[in-house]
Amino acid sequence: MLYFENDYCEGAHPAILQKLMETNFEKVPGYGTDPYCASAKEKICAACRCPEADVTFISGGTQTNAIVIASMLHRWEGVVAAATGHVNGHEAGAIEFTGHKVMGLPHKNGKLDAATVRNFCATFYADSNHDHMVFPGMVYLSHPTEYGTLYTKAELEALHAVCQEYKMPLFVDGARLGYGLAADGTDVTLPDLAKWADVFYIGGTKVGALCGEAVVFPHGAPAHFMTMVKQQGALLAKGRLLGLQFDVLFTDGLYEKISRNAITTANALKKGLAAKGYQFFMDSPTNQLFIVFPNEQLAALEGKAKFGFWEKYDDAHTVMRIATSWATKMEEIEQLLELL
Amino acid sequence: MLYFENDYCEGAHPAILQKLMETNFEKVPGYGTDPYCASAKEKICAACRCPEADVTFISGGTQTNAIVIASMLHRWEGVVAAATGHVNGHEAGAIEFTGHKVMGLPHKNGKLDAATVRNFCATFYADSNHDHMVFPGMVYLSHPTEYGTLYTKAELEALHAVCQEYKMPLFVDGARLGYGLAADGTDVTLPDLAKWADVFYIGGTKVGALCGEAVVFPHGAPAHFMTMVKQQGALLAKGRLLGLQFDVLFTDGLYEKISRNAITTANALKKGLAAKGYQFFMDSPTNQLFIVFPNEQLAALEGKAKFGFWEKYDDAHTVMRIATSWATKMEEIEQLLELL
Amino acid sequence: MLYFENDYCEGAHPAILQKLMETNFEKVPGYGTDPYCASAKEKICAACRCPEADVTFISGGTQTNAIVIASMLHRWEGVVAAATGHVNGHEAGAIEFTGHKVMGLPHKNGKLDAATVRNFCATFYADSNHDHMVFPGMVYLSHPTEYGTLYTKAELEALHAVCQEYKMPLFVDGARLGYGLAADGTDVTLPDLAKWADVFYIGGTKVGALCGEAVVFPHGAPAHFMTMVKQQGALLAKGRLLGLQFDVLFTDGLYEKISRNAITTANALKKGLAAKGYQFFMDSPTNQLFIVFPNEQLAALEGKAKFGFWEKYDDAHTVMRIATSWATKMEEIEQLLELL
Amino acid sequence: MLYFENDYCEGAHPAILQKLMETNFEKVPGYGTDPYCASAKEKICAACRCPEADVTFISGGTQTNAIVIASMLHRWEGVVAAATGHVNGHEAGAIEFTGHKVMGLPHKNGKLDAATVRNFCATFYADSNHDHMVFPGMVYLSHPTEYGTLYTKAELEALHAVCQEYKMPLFVDGARLGYGLAADGTDVTLPDLAKWADVFYIGGTKVGALCGEAVVFPHGAPAHFMTMVKQQGALLAKGRLLGLQFDVLFTDGLYEKISRNAITTANALKKGLAAKGYQFFMDSPTNQLFIVFPNEQLAALEGKAKFGFWEKYDDAHTVMRIATSWATKMEEIEQLLELL
Repeated sequence: MLYFENDYCEGAHPAILQKLMETNFEKVPGYGTDPYCASAKEKICAACRCPEADVTFISGGTQTNAIVIASMLHRWEGVVAAATGHVNGHEAGAIEFTGHKVMGLPHKNGKLDAATVRNFCATFYADSNHDHMVFPGMVYLSHPTEYGTLYTKAELEALHAVCQEYKMPLFVDGARLGYGLAADGTDVTLPDLAKWADVFYIGGTKVGALCGEAVVFPHGAPAHFMTMVKQQGALLAKGRLLGLQFDVLFTDGLYEKISRNAITTANALKKGLAAKGYQFFMDSPTNQLFIVFPNEQLAALEGKAKFGFWEKYDDAHTVMRIATSWATKMEEIEQLLELL
Repeated sequence: MLYFENDYCEGAHPAILQKLMETNFEKVPGYGTDPYCASAKEKICAACRCPEADVTFISGGTQTNAIVIASMLHRWEGVVAAATGHVNGHEAGAIEFTGHKVMGLPHKNGKLDAATVRNFCATFYADSNHDHMVFPGMVYLSHPTEYGTLYTKAELEALHAVCQEYKMPLFVDGARLGYGLAADGTDVTLPDLAKWADVFYIGGTKVGALCGEAVVFPHGAPAHFMTMVKQQGALLAKGRLLGLQFDVLFTDGLYEKISRNAITTANALKKGLAAKGYQFFMDSPTNQLFIVFPNEQLAALEGKAKFGFWEKYDDAHTVMRIATSWATKMEEIEQLLELL
Repeated sequence: MLYFENDYCEGAHPAILQKLMETNFEKVPGYGTDPYCASAKEKICAACRCPEADVTFISGGTQTNAIVIASMLHRWEGVVAAATGHVNGHEAGAIEFTGHKVMGLPHKNGKLDAATVRNFCATFYADSNHDHMVFPGMVYLSHPTEYGTLYTKAELEALHAVCQEYKMPLFVDGARLGYGLAADGTDVTLPDLAKWADVFYIGGTKVGALCGEAVVFPHGAPAHFMTMVKQQGALLAKGRLLGLQFDVLFTDGLYEKISRNAITTANALKKGLAAKGYQFFMDSPTNQLFIVFPNEQLAALEGKAKFGFWEKYDDAHTVMRIATSWATKMEEIEQLLELL
Repeated sequence: MLYFENDYCEGAHPAILQKLMETNFEKVPGYGTDPYCASAKEKICAACRCPEADVTFISGGTQTNAIVIASMLHRWEGVVAAATGHVNGHEAGAIEFTGHKVMGLPHKNGKLDAATVRNFCATFYADSNHDHMVFPGMVYLSHPTEYGTLYTKAELEALHAVCQEYKMPLFVDGARLGYGLAADGTDVTLPDLAKWADVFYIGGTKVGALCGEAVVFPHGAPAHFMTMVKQQGALLAKGRLLGLQFDVLFTDGLYEKISRNAITTANALKKGLAAKGYQFFMDSPTNQLFIVFPNEQLAALEGKAKFGFWEKYDDAHTVMRIATSWATKMEEIEQLLELL
């Protein structure tokens, strides 16, 4: 069975497991105060060229989104996101559970643009009844987006500008950030994110870790952030588990290196599928391909290859997501291309 | 100054004040257990032809929406509403504050239709990831809608059917219900609402009361509803204030009679404006007219007539809402028409 | 039937109803922006000798407590209160519903003392794990307390000092404030409250109004307080109803005058009961008496006099609360004393 | 440095790391639907002799408490706990953040007894105002308690009985359950917990895992539990990480075996300290010892041994917690005894 359903189907990069083994019986303090967390933070700050950043490790993406958003919004504010944003549609109402509205705006291939946000805010403040409404309090992006698309540096800068104008922090969900940074043609780097975002996270779960996301606040975390992390249940007693993984991932460029593998294999697959005449539902430069398959073909593939359901295309066709990852081997791509 | 900004600018129908005076020194028990609440409930049940209904009085509309919705949804559910619904845009996030998502769907003149809701639910349940999403748990309508439009009996029945199909209670916000029931050409009556809705409320604040909405649960209220009302801060110690007002409004058809006045005056105004060639932004059969004015004319009207801002039409024009009410006098209409 | 069950069994002071009648057809703007609210605020500021105070009107006590507390606490903070405080035991979890812990401390006759609060805070901050705990973020008192007892000026000053020391606002629930201010022997005045509290409210519901509490922030309200009031469902469209009542109550010392009536009648009753040898469960200087009755006597009184159940005293006796109010007549006291 | 500060200072049992290595590149589905979760569930059901139990894995204790409690309480209910319970004091208000009150009752050495709970509930329901109060909706225990003490089977049975009587589920927090089950003299087994509790969890984080708690619902989980877990941010994409660890821990009695190690080492330490005349703050039969130290001695120990601060005893003495774990070696005990 060729498994391409998602990018979290394997365990962790072997260097992580190796390091877990080596350090297993060291006795370290809990709750993120251990030396591995400290070392990982230092390395992440260096990679972001932002020595004064605050870095916190949280075990998963939905949790990170809910914690970051709830800790940065005021009571009267909601979070602005693309209507297709993960926080709007695929987190079981985790944001609303903390009392905040997600304000879904129109998108282009999963991306929010600065003009859309500016227009939304301008209309809001021009409405004389806006004190009876939810204030736009923060902008949420993901990079890559739900559709695997990427922002350019200029787009991030423009979004940053509108956020500054309306005093909203800019939050970038980087659950798949590695794959965004490693994509061909992108001009966005970690230091760019640290420059234009008020908070972002570097995804581990989908990029080589067993679990864990590294939240970076370039200008410092909100007061009492740790207590809020605890209040939302996310403060692991053995914080070392998260710190150590990021320490390994940010040693000797491992994070970049393994992220690149997902891109290389995705590119090979894309080329192969294009050559075979497959229809791409949209163009995605990262590790997720969205392909329109005849339903009959999908039925025939059952038991042989596994993709992720994306959406119905028409009565006879379905859009499927094929994901590569840090762990995908080129021979798996070859086998898949043979099969298709 | 001719004041047509909204339908809550006056106090209460004089019969209410009269009754408050007469009964002022009677000593009655608190928290809605007094004889006026009991009498009002009985009269409302009779008017709804629904003797077994549960009726609760709450002081305002936003509070009622937040209480009803939060008491009927499960934790994993959100409320489906027209994107223009009051709960989605104009209640400062009161629903999200209770932990629930408002799922805004496309509308036609403020109305939600059964096919849109069915399609939304069918797509939701067809998505194999729906356990990671917010479940549609309730449908919210208002009658009249934000745009003063009305559902037909057939439309309500169709919405009821889709709600039954997907096991969602149907909730009708009747903040301006009197004006809906009294409109020309409507075929929807109170007993119809009691038949097709699982919960609805009869607006008092905008229809002759100082404050108060009567929430009707035709099939009985949720368990411990009173404790939830208290928990959301809405249980008035002097519940008599709300009960007595509805007791008066539901005596000798007063609610209907005064609601009709808003329609008669709105109709006269509509006729007059049409004759003068004014542009109607949309056709609204109830007590709110939406008229496109040149900005210059609005400037000239300042200090002479007051309308409600609705939205910008274009750079030179603005849509304004002109509202009549139970208290509007025909001579005010005449004066306004002279002025325009 | 002699009704002494509570102090909210009558309607409103007749001057309020009179004013409602007189102003009924004036057309005024909504949501608390009307001239009656403005006038009432001005009069309350004057009475508090605090011209720069912010005043907001909210319809009931539980709602006011929930709104004030939730608007002033940070996410990581709870509210410190006497274990017997209304917010801790009798509001159906309204505070917790907004996400905050009520931290109940030991009390003396319903009163919290400064040393208890200081000790609690000192212990909290001395605990090296306090970042894993709920921070004490505000102190809640009621004046009079649940037991009708009163703070002295010196006690309030001491509580203010500990609040300053630990950067906690001091909140005084004045649901029955009039009766506290009018009590014999108290040295606490409205300007004292404005001096020592960061926020307090002047109860209307139990002191002559149909509904309504006036929240006073001597140093200004929290940012966006009005939007938070709306978000918790408490912004009445016809704000005039609340403003007008307080405007009347704060005209010509009416609030003081009618508050004093409750004290005069309570004192007469107290004297009479003492003369007859009744056992006082505790000494309360305001409008509530707590008397230990043999259960047999209570059975005999049924249908003749109505008191409020307070608590079981022993198998043969029950503590009952007898409440007077602004509306109690001296002849009712005489009749009750005859009966007992 | 001899490190005895807590029982989560090491990594995981080597067999877990070994298995992580072996299975690392297997591609398995996400969100707890993998074969390791399935296998672990089966083994846990067998160990509990409760084949129909529902088992869910969650990464940490506070999160588990918040999720279980919020998923089982109704809106109008709170959770009854010992005042010293972890949920009441040490989780930064995580329960209140979900909208529920923690009702702290008096305890004996950290234990809640059935009579206290019954009396609390009886008083609650006897109060005619209880609809204005938070209903007791669930009972929370921990086994071992915060003080390392244990319930007997008879005590659990009695608590179960009062829970049944008042229709409250009984929840047992087993963050250190292994150490409770392995203690000398206990008569409580896993099948007993499955019999008397409605939900409990088997702690992994403190008993040999990197992270993870196994929540067991002997009579089935609440409807849509998985969606609620997601909504609270706790659904790990790589659920295999949790499942695999419990699969290893419940293979060949590993969980019991390693739990016993903590007891054996704690017992040796206890014996040694008693022989040396140390003062025990309380008697704890599990892996935590609470010892009263002179402050001078603690100062002298700095840099040589690390214990956990428990509380101030008097001006010259401090209570310290010394914790052993699954990983403590007997020679560390010997070294510590030599030092003390």
